Amino acid sequence: MRTPVTIRDVARLAEVHPGTVSRALNEQTRALVNAETAARVLKAAVELGYRPNPIARGLKTNRSYTVGVVIPDLTNPLFPPIVRGIEDRLGDAGYTPLIVNTDNDPERERSHIEAMLARQVDGLIAATARLDVTLLAEAAAAGTPLVLVNRSLEDGSAAAVTVDDRKGVVLAVEHVAGLGHRLIGHVAGPQNVSTGHLRHLGFIEAMDAAGLEVDPGHVSYAAAFTEPEGARACAEVLDHAPRVTAIVAANDRLAMGCYDALERHGLSCPGDVSIVGFNDMPFIDRLQPPLTSVRVPQREIGSTAADLLLAQLSDDGDSPRQILLEPELVIRASTAPPRR
Amino acid sequence: MRTPVTIRDVARLAEVHPGTVSRALNEQTRALVNAETAARVLKAAVELGYRPNPIARGLKTNRSYTVGVVIPDLTNPLFPPIVRGIEDRLGDAGYTPLIVNTDNDPERERSHIEAMLARQVDGLIAATARLDVTLLAEAAAAGTPLVLVNRSLEDGSAAAVTVDDRKGVVLAVEHVAGLGHRLIGHVAGPQNVSTGHLRHLGFIEAMDAAGLEVDPGHVSYAAAFTEPEGARACAEVLDHAPRVTAIVAANDRLAMGCYDALERHGLSCPGDVSIVGFNDMPFIDRLQPPLTSVRVPQREIGSTAADLLLAQLSDDGDSPRQILLEPELVIRASTAPPRR
Repeated sequence: MRTPVTIRDVARLAEVHPGTVSRALNEQTRALVNAETAARVLKAAVELGYRPNPIARGLKTNRSYTVGVVIPDLTNPLFPPIVRGIEDRLGDAGYTPLIVNTDNDPERERSHIEAMLARQVDGLIAATARLDVTLLAEAAAAGTPLVLVNRSLEDGSAAAVTVDDRKGVVLAVEHVAGLGHRLIGHVAGPQNVSTGHLRHLGFIEAMDAAGLEVDPGHVSYAAAFTEPEGARACAEVLDHAPRVTAIVAANDRLAMGCYDALERHGLSCPGDVSIVGFNDMPFIDRLQPPLTSVRVPQREIGSTAADLLLAQLSDDGDSPRQILLEPELVIRASTAPPRR
Repeated sequence: MRTPVTIRDVARLAEVHPGTVSRALNEQTRALVNAETAARVLKAAVELGYRPNPIARGLKTNRSYTVGVVIPDLTNPLFPPIVRGIEDRLGDAGYTPLIVNTDNDPERERSHIEAMLARQVDGLIAATARLDVTLLAEAAAAGTPLVLVNRSLEDGSAAAVTVDDRKGVVLAVEHVAGLGHRLIGHVAGPQNVSTGHLRHLGFIEAMDAAGLEVDPGHVSYAAAFTEPEGARACAEVLDHAPRVTAIVAANDRLAMGCYDALERHGLSCPGDVSIVGFNDMPFIDRLQPPLTSVRVPQREIGSTAADLLLAQLSDDGDSPRQILLEPELVIRASTAPPRR
C-alpha cells in the first residue's frame, strides 16, 4: 500500500499554502481562493489522487477533528439555526461539532468545558452569554482556538461573531420614533450579559439621537430573557409610566411577556402600546399581532464563527478576529402610530 | 504513579457486573439499581478512589465515548428538546453526542453516517424519518448499537423510541367527535415516513371506532411536514368537502398551514372549522387561536433513547428494545363544537 497523499503533498505540487488547498478543495470555501489558484490546486489533487480522510488526518496531525460547541440551551429557538450554521460549515471542512448545553449555570459550564478539553477538541465555539465566566478566556490563553458567538469579551481578547446589538436597538427606536412615538419604554435584558448590556446602551443612544428623554421610570430590567420576566418588567413600566405608547424589548421572549402584561392591563397592541422585539425568532410572525422585530442573521453567525475557527486552525494569522454582523428591522403589525 | 482504578476493579470488589457499577455511580441511573447494591458499589468506589475519566476509559476499552446523533434538521422545533434529552442523559454517563443534520436527503444522510462510523462512534441514535433508508439497518447488522427515535423499522430489527402515533390521532379524533363533529377531515403527512403513515392509520381507525365515515375527499396528503404543504392539502379538503367542520392535521406545521388556508377561504377557526395539530411545539399556545395539539414527550423520547443505547453499550441483553411513549391531548381554543 502506498503512503496516503496528504494535503501538504497537494500544497507542494500546487505551490500554495496547505490552508489554501483546504479552501480550494472545499466547495463552500472555494470562492475565497483566486480562481486560477483553485484550478491549480484541483489539478494537483487529481494528479496525486488525493482523498480527504478525517481519521488519517487525525492520526497525522494529532487532531481530533472535533470542535466543542458550548451553548446555553438548545431548546431556546435562538440557538438551533446558529448550531446548524456551525455544523454545516464545520462538516464541509471535515470537522464534527460536540454540542453541550450549560443552562447558563457556571458550574455546569465549567464542567462541560473541562470535559471538552479532556476530549481534546481542536477548538471551542461558545455562545454562553455570561460576561463573568473566565474559563473560556483561560482556555484561549492556554492555546485552544476559541470563537465566541452572540457575545464578546470587553477586552477583545477572543475572536467573536456578534450581531451589532446597539445598531439593532437603534433601528427599533428610530422606527417607533418615526411613527410618532415620544414616550418610549425599554424592557431591558439582564445587564451582566453582553446582549442585554449593549441593547440597553443602544436604547439610550438612539433616544438621545432622536432628542427624546429617557425617564428612569420608562426602563425596567428583566432578570432573564424569559416571557415571565418580560411580563413583570413590562408591568413595571406600565405602572410607573402609564402614558408610554411604545416599548422596545431587548428580545422576542421579553416582547411576548410584554404582550401578556398588556393583556392583563386591558391594553391592546398596537392600539394602545406598540411593541418591538429582537431576534426575529421562528414563528414570531404568527403571534397575534405578528411581532415587529430586529432580525439577527443566526445561521450566518454560526457559519461565520466556524469560518473564524477554521482560519485559526489553519494558522491563517491575518484573519479578522471580531466580526459584527448587520441586524435588520422586520416591520410587522405590533407597531403603529400612537393613538393617544 | 499508580495504575488508575477502573470500573472493573470497582465491580470486582462490589461483586457486581461492571454495567451495574456505571448505573450505580451515575445519579441519573442509580434508581435502576437495587438500593443495597448501589450502596455497596459506592462504598467500593470510594474505597478504591475510583474517578471516571472519559479519555482513560476510551484508551482502555477502545471506545470513543461519542455517539452519533442523526437528525433531519435541528431548526425544526421538534428536535431540540429530543437532542437535549439525549445530550443530558449521555453526558451523565460520560458520553458526548456528535450531531449531524441530514435534511432528509438520502445522499447527505449516507455520507454523514459513513463519516460517523469512520469517527468510530460507539453507537448511533437516528431520528431520520425515511422508511426507505437502509444504511442504518446495515450499520446495526454490522454490530453498531443503534436506537431510532420518532420512527421505527417495520420488522422491529432496531431498538426504537417512538410516541404512540396512532393513539395520538385517536385522542384527537375522539376529542372533536366528542364535541359533536361528524364531517371530519384529515390533512395527512407524507406516507413514506412512519409518523405520517401511522397517524393516517390512527385517523381511519378512530373514525371507524366513532362510527364515522371517511370520505376519500375528506383526506388530503401533504408531501412534506411544512406550512405551505399544510395549506395546500387543507385547501384541497375544503374544496372537495366544504361541509367539513373539523380537520385533524398530522402535525403542528401542517395545522399552521390549515390556519392559512382557512383565512384564504374566509373561514374562521374554530367558528367554521376546528383544527387539531400534533407535537405541541413550543409557542404553539401563542398562535391565534392557540392550537389544540397532541403533546409528545420530546425530552423523554431523547433521554429514553439514550438509556436504550447505554444499555446496549453495557451489554445489558434483556433491555426493552421498542419503547412506545404515551401521547397526551392538550386542548386549547382551536377546537369547539360545530356551528353548522
